Amino acid sequence: MTELLIAPLSEADAVLQSMEDASPAKWHLGHTNWFFETFLLRDHMPDYRLHNDRWPFLFNSYYEAEGERIGRFARGMLSRPTVEEILNWRNAVDEAMEPLLDDPRFTDLIELGIAHEQQHQELMLTDIKHALFQNPLGPAMFECSGTYACSYQDEDHSYIHHGGSVQIGHDGAGFAYDNEGPPHQVILTPFELGRRLVNNGQWQDFIDDGGYRNSALWLSDGWAWVQKNAISAPLYWHENDQFSHYGWVKRHAAQPVTHISFYEADAYATWAGGRLPTEFEWEVIAREQDTAPTSNQMDGTEHLLPEGHADLFGDCWQFTRSAYLPYPRFQPAEGAIGEYNGKFMSGQVVLRGASCATARGHSRASYRNFFYPHQRWQFTGLRLAKDI
Amino acid sequence: MTELLIAPLSEADAVLQSMEDASPAKWHLGHTNWFFETFLLRDHMPDYRLHNDRWPFLFNSYYEAEGERIGRFARGMLSRPTVEEILNWRNAVDEAMEPLLDDPRFTDLIELGIAHEQQHQELMLTDIKHALFQNPLGPAMFECSGTYACSYQDEDHSYIHHGGSVQIGHDGAGFAYDNEGPPHQVILTPFELGRRLVNNGQWQDFIDDGGYRNSALWLSDGWAWVQKNAISAPLYWHENDQFSHYGWVKRHAAQPVTHISFYEADAYATWAGGRLPTEFEWEVIAREQDTAPTSNQMDGTEHLLPEGHADLFGDCWQFTRSAYLPYPRFQPAEGAIGEYNGKFMSGQVVLRGASCATARGHSRASYRNFFYPHQRWQFTGLRLAKDI
Amino acid sequence: MTELLIAPLSEADAVLQSMEDASPAKWHLGHTNWFFETFLLRDHMPDYRLHNDRWPFLFNSYYEAEGERIGRFARGMLSRPTVEEILNWRNAVDEAMEPLLDDPRFTDLIELGIAHEQQHQELMLTDIKHALFQNPLGPAMFECSGTYACSYQDEDHSYIHHGGSVQIGHDGAGFAYDNEGPPHQVILTPFELGRRLVNNGQWQDFIDDGGYRNSALWLSDGWAWVQKNAISAPLYWHENDQFSHYGWVKRHAAQPVTHISFYEADAYATWAGGRLPTEFEWEVIAREQDTAPTSNQMDGTEHLLPEGHADLFGDCWQFTRSAYLPYPRFQPAEGAIGEYNGKFMSGQVVLRGASCATARGHSRASYRNFFYPHQRWQFTGLRLAKDI
Amino acid sequence: MTELLIAPLSEADAVLQSMEDASPAKWHLGHTNWFFETFLLRDHMPDYRLHNDRWPFLFNSYYEAEGERIGRFARGMLSRPTVEEILNWRNAVDEAMEPLLDDPRFTDLIELGIAHEQQHQELMLTDIKHALFQNPLGPAMFECSGTYACSYQDEDHSYIHHGGSVQIGHDGAGFAYDNEGPPHQVILTPFELGRRLVNNGQWQDFIDDGGYRNSALWLSDGWAWVQKNAISAPLYWHENDQFSHYGWVKRHAAQPVTHISFYEADAYATWAGGRLPTEFEWEVIAREQDTAPTSNQMDGTEHLLPEGHADLFGDCWQFTRSAYLPYPRFQPAEGAIGEYNGKFMSGQVVLRGASCATARGHSRASYRNFFYPHQRWQFTGLRLAKDI
Repeated sequence: MTELLIAPLSEADAVLQSMEDASPAKWHLGHTNWFFETFLLRDHMPDYRLHNDRWPFLFNSYYEAEGERIGRFARGMLSRPTVEEILNWRNAVDEAMEPLLDDPRFTDLIELGIAHEQQHQELMLTDIKHALFQNPLGPAMFECSGTYACSYQDEDHSYIHHGGSVQIGHDGAGFAYDNEGPPHQVILTPFELGRRLVNNGQWQDFIDDGGYRNSALWLSDGWAWVQKNAISAPLYWHENDQFSHYGWVKRHAAQPVTHISFYEADAYATWAGGRLPTEFEWEVIAREQDTAPTSNQMDGTEHLLPEGHADLFGDCWQFTRSAYLPYPRFQPAEGAIGEYNGKFMSGQVVLRGASCATARGHSRASYRNFFYPHQRWQFTGLRLAKDI
Repeated sequence: MTELLIAPLSEADAVLQSMEDASPAKWHLGHTNWFFETFLLRDHMPDYRLHNDRWPFLFNSYYEAEGERIGRFARGMLSRPTVEEILNWRNAVDEAMEPLLDDPRFTDLIELGIAHEQQHQELMLTDIKHALFQNPLGPAMFECSGTYACSYQDEDHSYIHHGGSVQIGHDGAGFAYDNEGPPHQVILTPFELGRRLVNNGQWQDFIDDGGYRNSALWLSDGWAWVQKNAISAPLYWHENDQFSHYGWVKRHAAQPVTHISFYEADAYATWAGGRLPTEFEWEVIAREQDTAPTSNQMDGTEHLLPEGHADLFGDCWQFTRSAYLPYPRFQPAEGAIGEYNGKFMSGQVVLRGASCATARGHSRASYRNFFYPHQRWQFTGLRLAKDI
Repeated sequence: MTELLIAPLSEADAVLQSMEDASPAKWHLGHTNWFFETFLLRDHMPDYRLHNDRWPFLFNSYYEAEGERIGRFARGMLSRPTVEEILNWRNAVDEAMEPLLDDPRFTDLIELGIAHEQQHQELMLTDIKHALFQNPLGPAMFECSGTYACSYQDEDHSYIHHGGSVQIGHDGAGFAYDNEGPPHQVILTPFELGRRLVNNGQWQDFIDDGGYRNSALWLSDGWAWVQKNAISAPLYWHENDQFSHYGWVKRHAAQPVTHISFYEADAYATWAGGRLPTEFEWEVIAREQDTAPTSNQMDGTEHLLPEGHADLFGDCWQFTRSAYLPYPRFQPAEGAIGEYNGKFMSGQVVLRGASCATARGHSRASYRNFFYPHQRWQFTGLRLAKDI
Repeated sequence: MTELLIAPLSEADAVLQSMEDASPAKWHLGHTNWFFETFLLRDHMPDYRLHNDRWPFLFNSYYEAEGERIGRFARGMLSRPTVEEILNWRNAVDEAMEPLLDDPRFTDLIELGIAHEQQHQELMLTDIKHALFQNPLGPAMFECSGTYACSYQDEDHSYIHHGGSVQIGHDGAGFAYDNEGPPHQVILTPFELGRRLVNNGQWQDFIDDGGYRNSALWLSDGWAWVQKNAISAPLYWHENDQFSHYGWVKRHAAQPVTHISFYEADAYATWAGGRLPTEFEWEVIAREQDTAPTSNQMDGTEHLLPEGHADLFGDCWQFTRSAYLPYPRFQPAEGAIGEYNGKFMSGQVVLRGASCATARGHSRASYRNFFYPHQRWQFTGLRLAKDI
């Protein structure tokens, strides 16, 4: 998949870095490979020799325990090594990994490496979208071969929950990140959760009603963000169009709104007379539905192919009002791997679900995604909750 | 009390603003008065004429519903009106308030105005401390008339809690802010909470062990903050001294460490093999102890007078690992007053307890103070929690 | 004079610092005294004991050779020492200076100290004006006791010069700064120089003609400055009024425009079909006129008193197109005093003349004032030149 | 030549933009072609149709009169159009230009277009060098095929000039930019000018003597720049090596120091007991020598090929102490072309000579190059002057 995603990009596309939050596609290609070379081959295969001594320095991300790394914003300067050289490195690492694949001692680590790579596949899609958006020509990543057919139902029902003590967190079956556990009890009060995601048409109503100009709707930090950045619409909106992996396309009212920040999601919820759900409310509904995601990035990025209907998973990440914090008795793993999740537990908010760019295997009720409240280059949206 | 706090300051002291987070003492003097003039006299007393038409603009803080206000950092430019003119304004407002004091319709609002003013009394103390600290001469706000006698006991026992469902939040008796409710149930797992606050001696051990240079101890945002600001000790530490309202004084190992950020508190807890408590853990212990605070700012700011022992209340605000978020079914009040708490519910962390600069009446188990994770000009400290 | 200028200010006024370019009035009071205590008493009077050991650190400005000094923007935090304490220090220094006054070895240094203090008197006026301007109440420094009577003649003649080799620079008679020499020959081509300063009415025409929105009129740096700071009028203009030491007053069309930047002056000149003069052109005209300044700050700051007519000196500093550079064979003085002028010779432009806030003795044909091209809190204006 | 310079770069190299001052190689390729398409074909060839309607927007630089253009720092996001597409555009424009080449009405404009393109060839070399330098792998642009042989003579004589009135500026024979005229007389005082450029060995002495830590040597702005950016050596120096178009190479003491800022050049001159020459002093010596440049970029970028000796032209641009200002009676051209030079006449300093990356035809005594005093990514160096 990673290689399929790099394929449509030119060498020049692959080196673009449009902001500090994003990384070049080429860097993702190297970084995901670095993970296997470092934590599997280097750490566990005696006699393994690094493919190139200096590349780990280039492709380490935030693992402080792994030593110095390149400044985050300098990733966009890596015209060398070339994409081809990195692909060769990947092949070499894949080959070297063979003997480890069936060794049960490494199953967990390999599974983590795969999950890690799948997360970066999503970032490749959102990062290159942001980079191509900077180009006034509005270039496309993919040819648009399908025809668009929106099938969102007009019904507007809600999921209902009567509250009480519920179990939250991953309970052991299948892969999960450390931050999804330990499982524990949480008490909820009765609430309802929208079956449908908020869509572009509703968001347009919010705009038309002066939503971006009414301070009463906004959190204090959110209002400061709106003022400072002159925000007046979701990222990628321009007049009646929106920017996509297919270039500039017409915007459809019935499609879920995406590319909004937490601040915007919260202001919208206030305007609509609801609120964002907590991550626990979202999870308990998802467990009851046990929905299987019906779409993923290969079927149709950004839902331009005829398939989608509004799901808990597969359209967009959904903001919750929960801060990203450790569950009771959470313990990060030992060593560099322990830096994967725990050290980000301040200042960020939890998103639940999965987006059109998320690998299918990442759709699970306990999955916790997290971003800073101002970030919106991911496929982020919302559904409303209400106390009942 | 507000007037007692302004008394030792010169006109020049009273106009100082050392950073955007802080306000001049004179501004606090005007702002607390503005609250009564605006929300009581203007809104509820027919025929009341504003003391001065243009002063509300100067002394409004963040109440967007009340219209435009002066840029936050321009408060330090208000050499006029003078302190004396503001004191006259206060007298006029106090007098005009007389008829409203016994009217039960206004009891809640007056109580809120008093609580609001008490909060600003604490800010007056912390803000002027920060301003005087900028002066290389290290001037004192108060003459130091007492002798210091530290009586912290060496015992290091903990409070123990066996977990289970507990009630959290203010339940109706006496004044409380809207953010302290509604009361609701929360499930805890067994934990212990230190009886003693972490003290300067322990913090020195953390420093000596390289605590500020070891990235593994820090949250990712915290490490970035340490690096960017070259942080290597609590605010106000210099060699063996610390800056206080009495000027530069010798630092005592047995006194609670104060003026640390959330990032520092969290890193210390990790280093010490513990963690920060949640705000719920803290509250349930405080309810059980039902401790009466034994000190307040008038007895001895920063505990230079002989009295203190380590309390849940009265030494310093204590960091929790909880983000500042609404309790289930929280509803902010209508109108400008509703901006008091709710709109700050993003990006901040909860602190519990009360500091040496907090008005005595503000010490209650359900009280939720909140600051951004990098801020440390308040009297902030910590006590450790552990899972058991 | 310095003491007359501090007199109308409260302790709070005297500590205000509105931007890094400006200093509090109290700081000027201390700094000018520091000059005499340091370079005269400390350096040349055996047995002199510093009035206060730590004050030199507070009141040194940019003399690197004199050791560490307080950060420029921290000057506004100096609520202590008080104005009165500094005045006492001045008295002590004045007294201690007595024996040196008639000693010919120190004449030059004392003269420099006086000239230095006179420059700071002008800064006191411009800095406090900028500080009071930040206050939405628009407070006045002085009571306005006079009546305004504008006597600018409507004639619009020019000075004519036929070019050729001319002598530039101070030639030895009377006090001058090192940067005014050595005298040297410069070749000019024929030009004319406006007798009248550009006035507010003409500037209004420039605005009405879209001057601030037409990039073709501006230097590249100037246009970037206009865009970034949303500049659309001189500093202190608001509708038909302008801010002054007397508070907000009506603006008069016939008065010279002031408080403009070099960028604005240059754009205006381009718009008006002229250009700024070089500093040499200005000087040669001034020598020929040998005009005596008819006004100074004590007669009427900002010309609200009935007296003024358009002069080369006494209304405002006049921008030239000359960069501030050393004259041929210029040598800065030895030691800290040598830092007075030479080290500022990059990035700044020369202004000639003298403003309504300049001490009378500073009006001389060879005087070179200098500021960065974006600065405009001084009384800066322009007269036009043309090639003929 | 432009195409030879793009040839060794990959698509990824060609899109790199390492800072706002620099542009991607691909952008230079497009911009130089845009000049011909816009000012020749569009403006003067009826019926010419733009190759692509939207590309002018991408490749306009600072010509405000030509309408909106892409933000300077967004140039690095132009992965499309590809290098090949731009080369095809160049071919199309070249072909369309044929009929205009022999038309005398366009000679001047075509000559300007060629001179403009040659300037951008130099920028291509300096910009890509800066971009590749960001890569920790230190990649090379060129293979190093020659052997280095330094032939700088050890003699240290100077050019002598006895002063008097001299003619400055281009006087009409051959191509020159508008800023090189009009010719005019300037009076000089006697001086000498070093025959040899300051070299790496001498610069090392300056460093070893604490040159970067001694504030007394620096202009005030320069010292602030050193402090803020922690400058301690020329750009591209690391231990005993320096970065070059051939990657990291050993540094030679006898080679001219390059990649220094004006501030550094000025501080060095002060340290060495000399000063920087004025641009007039430089020019009059150059006229007398009438030296033919002996090297240019094609012979050996950065002098790794055996040829060089210290010349007025061909090694590096040499700082003067002159600000970049208009000569007497200077008039910029009409229209967009008039934006070429005049509007940059503030805040910059003049450099004279030509560097190893300058097209041979650009070496002339009257040529005025200009940069901001902090910039140093060009091949900038210095020779010393002294009053005699």
